[in-house]
Formats: sequence, structure tokens, C-alpha cells
Amino acid sequence: MKKKLLVIGAVAAGTSAAAKARRVDPELEIKVLAESEYISYGSCGIPYFIGGLVASKEKLLVRSIEDFAHQSIEIKNLCKATEINLSEQKVKFWNLSQNHIFEEYYDKLIIATGARPTSFDWPGLNKKGIFTLRTINDGANIKEYLRLNKSARVLIVGAGYIGLEMAENFSALGFQVTLVERESQVAPSMDPDMALIIQEHLEQKGIEVLVNQEIKEFEGGETVTAALTSSGVIPADFVLLSIGVRPNSELAADAGVQLGAGHAIKVNSRMETNIDGVYAAGDCATTTNLITGEDVYIPMGTTANKQGRVAGENAAGGSAAFKGVLGTGIARVFDLEISRTGMTEKECREKGIKFTSHTVKSRTAALPGYAGDAWIKIIADEQTRRILGGQIAGHCGAGKRIDIIATAITLKAGLDDIFDADLAYSPPFSPVWDPVLVALNQFK
Amino acid sequence: MKKKLLVIGAVAAGTSAAAKARRVDPELEIKVLAESEYISYGSCGIPYFIGGLVASKEKLLVRSIEDFAHQSIEIKNLCKATEINLSEQKVKFWNLSQNHIFEEYYDKLIIATGARPTSFDWPGLNKKGIFTLRTINDGANIKEYLRLNKSARVLIVGAGYIGLEMAENFSALGFQVTLVERESQVAPSMDPDMALIIQEHLEQKGIEVLVNQEIKEFEGGETVTAALTSSGVIPADFVLLSIGVRPNSELAADAGVQLGAGHAIKVNSRMETNIDGVYAAGDCATTTNLITGEDVYIPMGTTANKQGRVAGENAAGGSAAFKGVLGTGIARVFDLEISRTGMTEKECREKGIKFTSHTVKSRTAALPGYAGDAWIKIIADEQTRRILGGQIAGHCGAGKRIDIIATAITLKAGLDDIFDADLAYSPPFSPVWDPVLVALNQFK
Repeated sequence: MKKKLLVIGAVAAGTSAAAKARRVDPELEIKVLAESEYISYGSCGIPYFIGGLVASKEKLLVRSIEDFAHQSIEIKNLCKATEINLSEQKVKFWNLSQNHIFEEYYDKLIIATGARPTSFDWPGLNKKGIFTLRTINDGANIKEYLRLNKSARVLIVGAGYIGLEMAENFSALGFQVTLVERESQVAPSMDPDMALIIQEHLEQKGIEVLVNQEIKEFEGGETVTAALTSSGVIPADFVLLSIGVRPNSELAADAGVQLGAGHAIKVNSRMETNIDGVYAAGDCATTTNLITGEDVYIPMGTTANKQGRVAGENAAGGSAAFKGVLGTGIARVFDLEISRTGMTEKECREKGIKFTSHTVKSRTAALPGYAGDAWIKIIADEQTRRILGGQIAGHCGAGKRIDIIATAITLKAGLDDIFDADLAYSPPFSPVWDPVLVALNQFK
Repeated sequence: MKKKLLVIGAVAAGTSAAAKARRVDPELEIKVLAESEYISYGSCGIPYFIGGLVASKEKLLVRSIEDFAHQSIEIKNLCKATEINLSEQKVKFWNLSQNHIFEEYYDKLIIATGARPTSFDWPGLNKKGIFTLRTINDGANIKEYLRLNKSARVLIVGAGYIGLEMAENFSALGFQVTLVERESQVAPSMDPDMALIIQEHLEQKGIEVLVNQEIKEFEGGETVTAALTSSGVIPADFVLLSIGVRPNSELAADAGVQLGAGHAIKVNSRMETNIDGVYAAGDCATTTNLITGEDVYIPMGTTANKQGRVAGENAAGGSAAFKGVLGTGIARVFDLEISRTGMTEKECREKGIKFTSHTVKSRTAALPGYAGDAWIKIIADEQTRRILGGQIAGHCGAGKRIDIIATAITLKAGLDDIFDADLAYSPPFSPVWDPVLVALNQFK
């Protein structure tokens, strides 16, 4: 009899897993449970769908149910898994369209249940006009609300990547935007010196930025009219909460699957959980920090795709591994590109690592009209001179230079290995010394 | 008594050397002989000066004679070195403004005499309207000629980086452009499959591309009217020869300094020649191919700056080394960015290296309006799986991704070390799998 792979979740990791499993084993029976009607979409594009650069939600979809059917992968959408029975190798799920509970046997199980916005218990949180942003439906709901309601003052709570991207997108829609952050800086995954550059750029673009402010309560009648913070009242008729996510790991934990960092499902490099034949991948799973070797929870779209592929390959009888992450991230914030990889100064201090760092201001290119400012920060181990991290803020062409540093860290490079690397130069693309080399040369 | 450093040449390598020497030794006497009135300029910007994107030749200048004077570096411009006397440690030079020969003693000598266009003996080469492009004055002369003469049909001979960049720039000026290349493809430093993508793009942009054509003769009266090639007649009232350069190494060779690859001055990683106290750097000097370890001649602006700095540091009593190059290059060709690093298939075959390669067509980004095609080619050693080379052709954001591959090769990475590297992803910058990772994953 044919073996059956069951996948719970059908956004990034789940669909990557199913597609890879099919390529590895053409005979395998593959079923995927999808909670939403939307499957296989690019979550990271949702801010641009709200802002209008992505014309419709359909443009966010990568592959359709029919595409998967052609590969003999059955996607059961509007089916929400409600229980995993590890001993019987069965998953119970609620078919939302039939409003009925079914169950499905599996030989191998891949859990790709994703994550959801962190919840808080602020008074007034249930008022109209307060949204989180995670799924394609969240994006559609926000768009519809903004179409139907005359919002003018938008408050974004949380100045991470999504908060920063939404500041740009709400601003493009003509709203007056306030960005409030609990920590002492925007972009909390970067160091304060870089965050200040980002904050100044936001302010130049007309965004009001308030740091060190805890949300206490939302005010208003049926609809939100203001947020009360630790420092005062912020009027707002639309609120976006972008305050991080937590993994959807309860289903797995309740069944007896072990959790790890950040309450995510603990996996090894093969995406195996502690239960034989059960894998996890994507925003519900842990990964490894390539520098410290620690189990970490850093949910990212790229990681979800990579982990999904590895889980699918292994579940189908192949052999693959995903080594881990550097926490690389990039975002566009108006005309500024910001990116980071590896460890920040803050993280080095937390880990007790003695570091040395330099930040330089250089240019993205030599050709007038193509050149903008680029700030590059590099952090290295003080003793070994091994490169530990990089951070960039700059104009067009700056951000993806972080990949040079990410590649170097992946290969365990020391500062002295690449300070004179033969990087590409021509006036539209770079100054004669690439900004990354300028930064590296500060350590000489 | 103070020691004296004499530098011959004041464009990229010479000025980098002088500036670095000053930082290393504040006491050193430093003199620089500059043949032209223009010093310290970015040669690679000259095509854009002709095309108009760089508004004036002054915009190409990096530092002025006065800037150097402030650092106590004496630049003697319009002074052409005519003889090096190694035994007496003296350089004779012709002061062009005084029309007189002087000589200068040195304790240390840095030769940074650059390169000049390769010369051919085609009949008709002395006709008006035929130009080469190397110096700032070449650029100014071309601009002035085009202003005064009603040229309409431009012929570019040689489809390397400069030829390709000039195709764009002449086209922007409204000329009808024909590009003729002796080899069987444009961009001879890349493989034929990538060259075809470039050629198709050129043709889409209205450039007539003729490959496999040897120039035989230039026709016309006083002024050129056509080129006669191995296959026919190409009408042209303006001709740009961009057929490579050769090093200005005769002055050094005549004095007894040893030459190496491509008749360039042979240097080690410290930029030392075979003569004690005599250094060479930039387009007149050799360098090391980081993959093969061979002495090579690959004149590039970036290399000139790096070698100049190393020569300056060592001549001033410091200790620095330049490890070598990968032949990394990048150019913009209309809407296409092209780049390469390391070894091509052609070069692997010449060296007898068994290789494996994959070319993929991916996208530069995920966000509509920001995404264009990107072709990525990666070449690796068949046995060791060590990455040997990369080539890219693609739209905005594609070209500089070559730096990821250049960094990997510098660090002697194998394919399996970075196929799942944590590169930066966000829809305006990349698909969820960066095109470089897509290419690397073909080898699995």
C-alpha cells in the first residue's frame, strides 16, 4: 500500500514540503490541510498589497490548489487541524465548509502551522479599527476597512520590519502615521546607532516616531479614537499592531511533541521533532543560530521555504539538512534600505562575547544620480577577528550588500580574509572601494 | 635627512599609493609625477561623462593637487617620466610646460604608469573621427568632436565592458550604433550563453551587433566614412576603438625591471618588483589569480586602488599585502546589469579543469514593478565541488549579486557550504529564494 504524507499548513513551509516530497517520491500519497481558502502565498508581500503596489491579493498567490492537484498533491482547504494523535498516527481536523470533524491517518507528518500575532490584554483591544497583520485575509480586511471608513490618523504599534514597511505603505495611501515602539529605538533587531539613521529618515518622511512608549489602553466608543501610552495620549482612528508573533505550536505540544526556543517546535537540522516520523518546519519551528549553535526562534519567510523543502525531502525518504540561520533581514523604509545579519553589539553583550565594531558612512555608487549614502556596520570577535555581524542602512543598492557579510559569516570568515576581496566595481553600481570593503578596512 | 618616495603616475594607483604612504609616515618626502594636467580621477566614469550622466570632467576628479599639497604630497603635473636609473636611484622626466628635462632622486620608487589602448596597424587609422578612450582628455576630445561634427553613425570596435557601456551612452546621445567584435560573442570575458542574452538585449535596444568580424581598414577621405571588415563594409562617421589595453611598462623594462604576464611589471603580493625599493601598482602591474595562483594581467580600477594602497604602505615602511583577484567585473548595458567573477567555462577548458555548471533564469525581486529577469550561472570544480566562477545578466539589482559568489570563491567555498545560506529576503529586493541560491540548488 502507498505511504501517506500528511502536511498541516499550506502557506510557505507546508507547500514547499509537499512539492519537494512529490519530487523525491512520485508514489507517495500527499495530503495538505489548509486552514484558509488561500494557500501558497507570499506573506511578506501583504504590506505592499495594502499599500497598492501589489494590485490584488491574487497576485500574492504562488501556486493554486489546481497546480498542486496536477502534482497529485491534495490540498484540503478550510480544514483546521484540531488534534494530533501520535500513537495512532492520526490528525483530527475540522472541515469549516462542511462544519464537520474528520480524521486522517499518516505515515509521516509535517507540522507547518505557522505563527500568529502576539496577543496582549490591553483594555479596548476589541474596538473597531484595531488590526493585526499576518494572513492574506488580514490584509484584505485592512484594505476593506480603510476603504469603508474615513481613517486619517494611523497608529502603528511596533517598529520591527512589518511596522516599518507599513509606515511607508500607509504613508503612500495618504494617512498621517505615528509609529510607537516599546523599546528605546526603532528596528530593535539592529543596534541603536543604525536605528537612529532609520528614525531620522522616517521623521523626514513625515512619520511621527515615539520610542520608549508602552501601550496601556485603547480609547474610544465602538471605534478606536486614541491609544493611551506610558507618556500620553496618541489620537488614532486606525491601529495596526505589529508587535511580533508567537508560534502555533499548541497542537503539537498537546500531542506530546517537544517545544524549544520561543515555545516553537524543536527540530534538528533534518527538521525532525522528538517524535519519529513527525517533522516541523517554518514559523512554528525552531532553527539553529549558525554563530552560537543555539536553538533559536527567528520566524522568516526564507527560512520557512528552506525548512519546508528539507522536511519534505526527509519525510519522503530523501536526506537533506538545513544548517541554520544568521537572522538575516532586510526591509525597505521609504528611500532607505535596511538590513542586518549575524549578531548585533547588543546580542554580543548578552552572550558575553568581546567584540570590536566599526560603522562607516560611504556611498552606494560613484555615478551621480545613482549614488546615495550607505552606512555599514561590521562587528567582529575582538580576539579571533571572526566576523560576527553586519548592519546596513542606505539608499538604493545598499541593503542587499548584507549578503556579502552573510556569506562571509556562513563561511566563518575573519576580517583579514576578505578586506581586499575582488568585489564588482563600475560607477553605476559602487564606489571604487565597495562600502563593505570600506567598513572592513576600518579594522586594519 | 628625510627619505624620499617618488611615484610615477597620478591616476588611481599612484594617488592611492601617495596618500597611503603619507598616512603611514608623516615625515616622508613624497613627490608624484603626473603626465597629464588631470590627476586622481575615476577613469571608469568617462563613458558616462561622454553620455552626459556625468555633467563635466571636473566631476570625475577625486582629489586636487591642492588636496595633496595639504597632505604635503607634491604633485608635479605635466611631467612625463622618460628614464629610470636604478643604480643611481634617479628618474628623469620631461616637464611639458617648461619643455625641459629634470631628474629626481628617490629612496623608494612606485611605478604606476597605467596602460594605454592596444594599437593596431589598420590602414586608415589616422583618419579624423577615429578615437580611443582611456584618459579624461580622450573623453573630452570625443565630446568636443561630436559637438563640432555632425556624426550620425557610430561604430564601436570591441564589445568588452567599455564597448558595451559606450553602446548605451552613444545610443543615449541619439546616434545609430554598430558594435563589432572580433570574437564570436560580445562580452568575451563571459561564456557564450550569457553573451547571447546580452547581445539580444543590445539588439532590442537598437544596437547593430556584428560578431566574428575582423577590422581590415578604415575608409574615407580626411574623415572616416566606413570600416572594411572581414565580412563587408560598415558605414560610420565616428569610430571608437575599445579593443583592450596594454601596460605602460617600457620605462620600467628599459631600466631592468622584470616584466610578467601580459608584458606588465611583475610584482609580488607586497607590490615589490625584482628591484629592491621599487614597487609597481595598478594597470602597469601584474597580479595573482586567486584560483589558479598564476601571475595574470587583468587591469581594473578597483585593483589599481588596492594595489596602490599596498605599494604606498610598504614603500613607507609599513607592511601590507594584496592577495589577488578573481577578475570580477560589472557593467550596465542599457537595462541589463552584467557581471562575472572567477573562471568561465572557457577558462576552465583552457586550464584543463573538469567543471560542472548550471545557468538558471530567476527574478531579481518578488514585488511587481521591482522584479526583472535574472540569469545566474555558476561553475564549480566537478570533483571537489569548489565554486570556481559566476556570471550574471539581469535587470536592476541582479549585477552586484556577483559579490556573493566572489566572496564565496575568496573563502574557497564549496557548493554545499552556501546553498542554504541565510541571504536577505523581502519582496522589493529578492524572491524568497535568492537567484544565487536558486542557481546553487541546481547542483544538488
